[in-house]
Amino acid sequence: MAEYVNMDTLRFQLYQVHDMPQLFQYARYAEYDKDAVDIFLDSIKDFSDQDLYPSFREMDEAPAHFKDGKIVVHPAVGEAMKKGGELGVIGASYDMQAGGLQLPGMAFHAAYYIMEAANNNIPGYLGLTAGAAHLIIAFGNEWLNETFVGKMLGGQWGGTMCLTEPQAGSSLSDITTTAYPQEDGTYRIKGQKIFISGGDHEHNDNFVHLVLARIEGAPAGTKGISLFVVPKKRPEAGNLVPNDVITAGDYQKMGQKGYCTTHLVFGENEGSTGWLVGEPHKGLKYMFQMMNEARIAVGRGAVSIASAAYHASLQYAQERPQGRRLKNDGTKDVSEEQTLIINHPDVRRMLLLQKAIYEGALSVVNQTALYHDLEMVSEGEDHEKYYLLLELLTPIAKTYPSEKCREAVDNGLQVLGGYGFCTDFVLQQYLRDIRIMSIYEGTTGIQSQDLLGRKVTMQKGKALEYLAAEVQKDMEAALTYDELKPYAGMLGQKLQLVQKVLGKLMPYAMKGQYERYLSDATLFMQMMSTVVVGWQWLKMATAAKQALVTGDDTYTTAFYESKVHTLKFFYKYELAKVDSLAQILMDEAVLTILEEKELIC
Amino acid sequence: MAEYVNMDTLRFQLYQVHDMPQLFQYARYAEYDKDAVDIFLDSIKDFSDQDLYPSFREMDEAPAHFKDGKIVVHPAVGEAMKKGGELGVIGASYDMQAGGLQLPGMAFHAAYYIMEAANNNIPGYLGLTAGAAHLIIAFGNEWLNETFVGKMLGGQWGGTMCLTEPQAGSSLSDITTTAYPQEDGTYRIKGQKIFISGGDHEHNDNFVHLVLARIEGAPAGTKGISLFVVPKKRPEAGNLVPNDVITAGDYQKMGQKGYCTTHLVFGENEGSTGWLVGEPHKGLKYMFQMMNEARIAVGRGAVSIASAAYHASLQYAQERPQGRRLKNDGTKDVSEEQTLIINHPDVRRMLLLQKAIYEGALSVVNQTALYHDLEMVSEGEDHEKYYLLLELLTPIAKTYPSEKCREAVDNGLQVLGGYGFCTDFVLQQYLRDIRIMSIYEGTTGIQSQDLLGRKVTMQKGKALEYLAAEVQKDMEAALTYDELKPYAGMLGQKLQLVQKVLGKLMPYAMKGQYERYLSDATLFMQMMSTVVVGWQWLKMATAAKQALVTGDDTYTTAFYESKVHTLKFFYKYELAKVDSLAQILMDEAVLTILEEKELIC
Repeated sequence: MAEYVNMDTLRFQLYQVHDMPQLFQYARYAEYDKDAVDIFLDSIKDFSDQDLYPSFREMDEAPAHFKDGKIVVHPAVGEAMKKGGELGVIGASYDMQAGGLQLPGMAFHAAYYIMEAANNNIPGYLGLTAGAAHLIIAFGNEWLNETFVGKMLGGQWGGTMCLTEPQAGSSLSDITTTAYPQEDGTYRIKGQKIFISGGDHEHNDNFVHLVLARIEGAPAGTKGISLFVVPKKRPEAGNLVPNDVITAGDYQKMGQKGYCTTHLVFGENEGSTGWLVGEPHKGLKYMFQMMNEARIAVGRGAVSIASAAYHASLQYAQERPQGRRLKNDGTKDVSEEQTLIINHPDVRRMLLLQKAIYEGALSVVNQTALYHDLEMVSEGEDHEKYYLLLELLTPIAKTYPSEKCREAVDNGLQVLGGYGFCTDFVLQQYLRDIRIMSIYEGTTGIQSQDLLGRKVTMQKGKALEYLAAEVQKDMEAALTYDELKPYAGMLGQKLQLVQKVLGKLMPYAMKGQYERYLSDATLFMQMMSTVVVGWQWLKMATAAKQALVTGDDTYTTAFYESKVHTLKFFYKYELAKVDSLAQILMDEAVLTILEEKELIC
Repeated sequence: MAEYVNMDTLRFQLYQVHDMPQLFQYARYAEYDKDAVDIFLDSIKDFSDQDLYPSFREMDEAPAHFKDGKIVVHPAVGEAMKKGGELGVIGASYDMQAGGLQLPGMAFHAAYYIMEAANNNIPGYLGLTAGAAHLIIAFGNEWLNETFVGKMLGGQWGGTMCLTEPQAGSSLSDITTTAYPQEDGTYRIKGQKIFISGGDHEHNDNFVHLVLARIEGAPAGTKGISLFVVPKKRPEAGNLVPNDVITAGDYQKMGQKGYCTTHLVFGENEGSTGWLVGEPHKGLKYMFQMMNEARIAVGRGAVSIASAAYHASLQYAQERPQGRRLKNDGTKDVSEEQTLIINHPDVRRMLLLQKAIYEGALSVVNQTALYHDLEMVSEGEDHEKYYLLLELLTPIAKTYPSEKCREAVDNGLQVLGGYGFCTDFVLQQYLRDIRIMSIYEGTTGIQSQDLLGRKVTMQKGKALEYLAAEVQKDMEAALTYDELKPYAGMLGQKLQLVQKVLGKLMPYAMKGQYERYLSDATLFMQMMSTVVVGWQWLKMATAAKQALVTGDDTYTTAFYESKVHTLKFFYKYELAKVDSLAQILMDEAVLTILEEKELIC
């Protein structure tokens, strides 16, 4: 089996870079220590090797599909739900009281990272079930919890999130699925939902759909949206009876072909019963808990694919001889044996680019997960701080991996040359699979508007202030090491550049030119997320330097040195792009806002 | 039928930007005028509408494949070869004496551009046949010409180029296919060739393979390579008899699934007869004629796909309502009707980005084709000048479209959101198809080494001097218009920056540090090609301005204004990136050259 994930790098990040053990001092995580988390992750790695990786190519070759009113998926999905439930991974981070393992979110994400690198078609089934269960745990009443959560965390029942409708797309204001109140306190749900991932198949006994709908007569817009549990089969007198949730079809896709995407119709015939979650009209607010989790999960999924693609292309580059190194005079000696392609600088550049991007992106995901965990256990001002940091980093943790890990995978494919394009090699599958990530759970455009339009401005920029303080702290730690000083300096400059760009953009918002303020939000995302990953690389290099200086032999010297080397690579080849992005963002030309003239022909 | 190509934009470039009519003054093209070329292009557009476009999706859904020792392709391939032959498009630019139409290469490329935008699976069959025939025309003896060329240009026989071998890949020094001299002056050919596009199918009576091989005892390396015609069936006493060219299998790919990729085995059994083309040991030099043509063709193919993808995403954006425009205070009024997504700045940005890239890339292809044509008809110093400009632009015309048009198509897919990922929509097919372009005919890495390692340095930088003079001339023309002055100024600065970067890099070559000199060649390609496309946009905007000022009503005012607008977009969003690329290229850190330490883990 090919390597798809570097467990050393994962553990280095969890323990040495992000200091997960700091969490064990809090009561919530007091039952755990590093060894316990390691055992959990080892069990997940075994599970991934045995139950996820082997079906990865098969699921692409024989896609999930709609047939005779049902969705047919690979049997490995059923197996994985069952074993995942047994391993506790579905609800790994939820309260023990609710049936979870109460592990830190960092460990939960690490587990899914391993699973998704093995086979990105399957963990979505588990992850959405987890997210749906979490909504019930957080906002549902006791009956909902008792009826649904156990079966979901155990993997017997699947869960989904049902937001999108054909006429609304990303514009949730426009959803029309309607909930009609019934005398018994339940609702009759009527409407259609599209693009429902993991929405149906024969390997789970039931599906628990978390559905956004409007209670009849509710106000327009997002303020009139409520959240309902609408199971495929509803419990009635101790039995499960069909609940008029019809699978009307599916979507065939260019990638993630084993992860079914369904079209569901609720209440078209005898009626679908739905149970309100929490209070009426607060559905979108609740759903945002799941969406925020799902956004981090999408970013993490993208990193997983880039990790697997990196290892596949690295292995190829280490085994494939082709051509010769250039001699000093620029010629090649054809009588020499061919060299391995990893020895060609351009191939090495493509490998280091992948490594710089995917490990950097992984570190952002871990950082975000850590803030989530710290928010869970902290109080007062600290709680506020971690909440704001989590809010600020969430769109970045979703978008940087979605966009840049695609570029990484693309470079991985390129390393293989013509073979990369052929279905005999796996790289093309990774490239097709990862393409959805910048669309799932709010496109890059939407995430970027969220970052610049909401997160940067929330509480008068307080989130950004906290972030700057975090970066400052890590810059100071880096200054301990001479080799890192120049990089800390560069990072400081780029951070100032972000502030300068914001200083240029903010007046547009203040003058009421909101479209202009946000028109280049996607470029602001590119700029800011690059700086954030630059920060992560400084942290990683600092941790590596510290290990080298103190003689920490958890990993090899080459391992630690490669982290410092990749920091340098990231700063030379990636962080430098921030300057041009700043230039574009500060350019006053207005070229993308609707005018009377039609300039697109 | 969806629009896949904008004929106005194509004609604007051919006639108003690049002044194709200047060619009609030369004897070679004296039989043509603009009307005649227009009639030719119209016939190609009709052919593309009727015979190419309709099978585009089908060819993806039912890929070409190997079965029972044969390659099965869509019947449209056979039809297209036949009709393409009748229309004269296969040999459109070759001498009338050889059976061609003797049209300018610009018209030839324009025709293939239209065909490839309609269905990028098919024109390769015609184009490789054209290229193979051209090798025989240029270097083959009379018998080869009489025996093969007519059938090829008529579309009855297919043609291929056979370079790659399993153990050699891009390293042609290492090919081992061997040619054994026979007493009758022919050769017995023995060896295997892989990745042979259009290598076999049942819709052509014969295939004429142009094969690189070593005559027994030839020197090692590329200097021992000769070129042979090795037909699938050889003419013998007025009949065609099997020539022991066995189709051993095919390659299934992530895209261009209708364009078969074959594995051919020569002379494994009773023997393959080959005919030497030209002189022994000069095969690679000859093949470079075809490769250089093929490189421009690959760039053009990438532009074609981006053109089709742009129009598909533009149509979607003009028809799909979703969300609302932001009001001045940053809120949205949900009681308003939804707006079309083209009115969202980020969507508009993605559309303009596609337009800026694909039209800019098309202009580079046309510019390169023009230099080819001028080289054909000019003499003395002019001939030298156009030869050098052609040599310099060829790797750029191949690479900029291969890389950046992929980015354009990726943005096209993004415009459709979730639908873009679904096979019901065509964007995902374009994205899969275009992925091969940066690998075909020398990867981006190889093209970049060619640009920086050979083309920039050839004749002490004379090609670059000629290019600078061409740009200077066009900058001066742009200065006529106040609106364009700032852009001419910016272009001048970026051109100076290219010189500054070269001033920084050249000493590495002079000091014999060749690996270091070329280690960031791919980034130099990114930088220089962006400047070249910036030059093309200045040319296009100048032509548009001229039309607006003189009241030229060949096209609408909006059409011309959109060209000026897109120039501005390109300069703001794309040309600005040159600064960061220059910064990276001038960074002295050495991070991608093999060292004793292994820094990739």
